[in-house]
Amino acid sequence: MKIDIITTGNHVTPESVKNTTVIVIDVLRATSVIISALKNGAKSVVPVTSVEEALETKKKLENVILGGERKAQKIEGFELSNSPLEYGSTAVYDKNVILTTTNGTHAISKSSAANKVYIGALLNARAVSEKVAERGDDVVIVNSGTNGQFSMDDFIASGAVMSEMLSIRDYELSDVAKTALLIYKAHPDFLSYIREARHYKVLMELGLEEDIRLCLQKDLYDIVPEYKNGIIKLNF
Amino acid sequence: MKIDIITTGNHVTPESVKNTTVIVIDVLRATSVIISALKNGAKSVVPVTSVEEALETKKKLENVILGGERKAQKIEGFELSNSPLEYGSTAVYDKNVILTTTNGTHAISKSSAANKVYIGALLNARAVSEKVAERGDDVVIVNSGTNGQFSMDDFIASGAVMSEMLSIRDYELSDVAKTALLIYKAHPDFLSYIREARHYKVLMELGLEEDIRLCLQKDLYDIVPEYKNGIIKLNF
Repeated sequence: MKIDIITTGNHVTPESVKNTTVIVIDVLRATSVIISALKNGAKSVVPVTSVEEALETKKKLENVILGGERKAQKIEGFELSNSPLEYGSTAVYDKNVILTTTNGTHAISKSSAANKVYIGALLNARAVSEKVAERGDDVVIVNSGTNGQFSMDDFIASGAVMSEMLSIRDYELSDVAKTALLIYKAHPDFLSYIREARHYKVLMELGLEEDIRLCLQKDLYDIVPEYKNGIIKLNF
Repeated sequence: MKIDIITTGNHVTPESVKNTTVIVIDVLRATSVIISALKNGAKSVVPVTSVEEALETKKKLENVILGGERKAQKIEGFELSNSPLEYGSTAVYDKNVILTTTNGTHAISKSSAANKVYIGALLNARAVSEKVAERGDDVVIVNSGTNGQFSMDDFIASGAVMSEMLSIRDYELSDVAKTALLIYKAHPDFLSYIREARHYKVLMELGLEEDIRLCLQKDLYDIVPEYKNGIIKLNF
């Protein structure tokens, strides 16, 4: 079994993920939000790629709450932004969360040609590694990236997830996967690397330090959301 | 001025290099071959993407020598392989070298929408950095990669080139550029990182250790080949 990383959602093609198990990572913050929402009792998360699609989808579903961001900030008319801190049980229990973000929700929907698409982050690094090890597929870790570019936060999170994966069983790593693992091993605190990321600086300037602190907590949760037929749930 | 890295020739689009100065790097071995050939007196190097194109181009030029590789080995009917050791002055002086390789020559021709396309490697890291600093453009370092994939050898070589660039003037680095610089600073000997590369292993299995040793010699030459209108030369 092999592990490869695609460093931005923009580079995902059906061919690049065919016959693989995908882990989509948008550590700051979309996949951390999705994991938090489902941990706190949301029935489902429906990732959509535009505000218009979010509003259209809302008409078709019951018990809906709208969440997401543009330029890292809440969208007008939406109840929640893209902060995992807002997705507590009071807000999301038994709700269908319709989520649209700049990077993460695109990366998820572009991965749909894979055998399985799991939602990963530091919050569930160990849990997603165990889930993937049960399967026999090659693994592609899709980093959502930032505005179509490589993003340091997703890259080191991929290294942390692979470190867990390799503690469970052997994998053959591609060159880019080996590099992410090296980066994680050289920066096990995450911040000494991530503080150089452009996306980190944007979030810090918006006062979102608490969000970052939560997103960098490894193995806080033991759940593994799955994306299937346009919906993210814990169990299908 | 900014520096970004595109980690495989496959991801180069006209849009991604427009209005920039590009440095194409295929450290093992195409750009090291091109630099060696021109250093040793070749009149030009003509990069082509197929064996057929090489044979067609030969008919149109005088004083031609054919070089290149498929699966890292010499092509039937060609005089030279993709080893820089073969491009000494006896072989190439005053010749037009028609070169076709699996990765490097594609990456070069795909970069042609840039303002300037320079040929870089460890062999001319300092020289190419000085050349680029004379211009005011943003810089894109195109790693040719291996078979369409990220290749560790090109990545660390990009870090080494950027280290020289930053010793000359300030640049704003993208996340992927920052990561390549970190990798170089953690592995200034190159080999402790590159020996994990899949492409390195392929070359070692073919007995090409001497090639690798030559290609990893930083700043051996002070020349900067340029690609323009389908031809690589030292001066246009």
